[in-house]
Amino acid sequence: MKGTMLYGPRDVRFEERPDPKILEPTDAILRISAACVCGSDLWPYRGVDPITEPTPMGHEYVGIVEEVGSEVKNIKPGQFVVGSFWASDNTCPICQAGYQSRCVDARPIGAEGAQAGWLRVPLADGTLVPTPELPPDDLIPSLLSASDVLGTGWFGAVAAATGPGKTVAVVGDGAVGLCAVLAAKQMGAERIIAMSRHEGRQTLALEFGATDIVTERGDEGVAKIKELTDGLGAHSVVEAVGTEESMMQAIQSTRPGGHVGFVGVFHGMHLDAMDLFWSTVHLHGGPAPVRQYLPELIDLIWNRKINPGKVFDLTLPLEQVAEGYRAMDERRAIKALLRP
Amino acid sequence: MKGTMLYGPRDVRFEERPDPKILEPTDAILRISAACVCGSDLWPYRGVDPITEPTPMGHEYVGIVEEVGSEVKNIKPGQFVVGSFWASDNTCPICQAGYQSRCVDARPIGAEGAQAGWLRVPLADGTLVPTPELPPDDLIPSLLSASDVLGTGWFGAVAAATGPGKTVAVVGDGAVGLCAVLAAKQMGAERIIAMSRHEGRQTLALEFGATDIVTERGDEGVAKIKELTDGLGAHSVVEAVGTEESMMQAIQSTRPGGHVGFVGVFHGMHLDAMDLFWSTVHLHGGPAPVRQYLPELIDLIWNRKINPGKVFDLTLPLEQVAEGYRAMDERRAIKALLRP
Repeated sequence: MKGTMLYGPRDVRFEERPDPKILEPTDAILRISAACVCGSDLWPYRGVDPITEPTPMGHEYVGIVEEVGSEVKNIKPGQFVVGSFWASDNTCPICQAGYQSRCVDARPIGAEGAQAGWLRVPLADGTLVPTPELPPDDLIPSLLSASDVLGTGWFGAVAAATGPGKTVAVVGDGAVGLCAVLAAKQMGAERIIAMSRHEGRQTLALEFGATDIVTERGDEGVAKIKELTDGLGAHSVVEAVGTEESMMQAIQSTRPGGHVGFVGVFHGMHLDAMDLFWSTVHLHGGPAPVRQYLPELIDLIWNRKINPGKVFDLTLPLEQVAEGYRAMDERRAIKALLRP
Repeated sequence: MKGTMLYGPRDVRFEERPDPKILEPTDAILRISAACVCGSDLWPYRGVDPITEPTPMGHEYVGIVEEVGSEVKNIKPGQFVVGSFWASDNTCPICQAGYQSRCVDARPIGAEGAQAGWLRVPLADGTLVPTPELPPDDLIPSLLSASDVLGTGWFGAVAAATGPGKTVAVVGDGAVGLCAVLAAKQMGAERIIAMSRHEGRQTLALEFGATDIVTERGDEGVAKIKELTDGLGAHSVVEAVGTEESMMQAIQSTRPGGHVGFVGVFHGMHLDAMDLFWSTVHLHGGPAPVRQYLPELIDLIWNRKINPGKVFDLTLPLEQVAEGYRAMDERRAIKALLRP
């Protein structure tokens, strides 16, 4: 098969790779129906996360089950499935508590490389969720989004304790931030403030349920959120960038006792613990336990109650994956969908 | 009156100070029945928090109301009262949400100096809680503890989401850590692991409800907690020290999805945000909203269901306050109670 490999900064190659095979009896092999480029893929692409050898890329995927290992009981060949970007057994105490991304046997799908024609998924029964039947083509982008960005934005909104009566601010207008806006709307938030200075993304944020747009950043952004909330700060803030500036903006935009849900992937940064101490906010986040939310998210998508697939504003044939990376790196695209 | 002033590192003086007066119509003046030295007082005492001028000391207090301002409605002269170390109006949206230590009009009692014969308490109606009647003398230490260390340990246990069925670990064997053990017990925790290498404190931890003692620290302490929890980590960890090492020990001792309640006062430290991200724990803490818990804590003490006053293992006349600082600095005492 062909798959995507990163050789070094901005050196993405779509090249011949070994066909994936069942290695463990709990594996499944998928024929990929759609994959995509993640904001977090840009960290190694830009050289911020150095790579030491050619590395398979991609961890978001939907596809059709081709083959399953001898111990796979619930997932069947022919099913259309959505999976999390972390494989999980879904039975250990951590999974049962809803933290499948930290399963005691968690495996990163990224290590397999989902930007490819085929994919081995470990722990198939615990990782994959089938759709009720083969989906119509127009639902595929939304189902694909559930694999990471929707599930991650959803977790951000849960971690930020979004809910009825709450004022929610979202720091970050990438696909995850936009999906957090959508999630906050679904969870009944009263007011949803999207922080964005990019017109196209503002439009999508409003469509997803944002009630206010704030274009200011940093201290000015914090001041604006305070101004909109009687000087108190938002109840709930989702951080979907992953820089020190955005994290401090999120913490400082939250009222005492409020909640920050952080889902932007941090990179080698430190937080001032004094600021954290005196903020008196709740902090929760990390790699999203997407598997927990998949049944609910698939149901919402299947019944056309949400349309998160709109975050894909560029669709490319899989072999043009390098252009997907370029377009996202240059912020010409929010998110690039890849079809084999 | 006489009161306690800190002139510089290890230079505590009990000296003549102006009698406190009603300055605002919401003030009350208390005759102090008991005050004490806080672990956080040791930061400036040791010169870690530099002071630039002679500074009044003390923020924990119980006493009898002597006089109230014209706008004080609920607090009456003659009442015995317990107050938080933050004055709060108890009516603003932040107070109503239970975060009185971050009241929009919060005032630090420390600025007044409670290690003194008399004390002005701002926002008396929002800050002070009277006991049902004048307390018997043997309840005074426990009532005093509610003013800070008990309320702070309680908040730590709440922030760590302690409750029935939970395994709780407490990092720090000072008065706050010991009170967090007591709080976890009251909240129905199944297993309470006190981390302490000091025999006297271990004994009190066991008396307060600890089921296990762990003497290891740092990575070894984390390994021991994992060993006691099937490799998963504790559900709830209270951090009651305030150093980078203790905070990382707390985070790493917590299972994914678990809760860290941090109430040790941080000093100029930074947290590795990557560690925080991948830990997938909940973090909450800061200056405890003691006022929220006072009615419940006073009730438990009044009915002799808890005896947190045992954290005071040294009682001194107020004029010997300097010896109280020395004894705590040298870890000869857990906590020094001062009687005028």
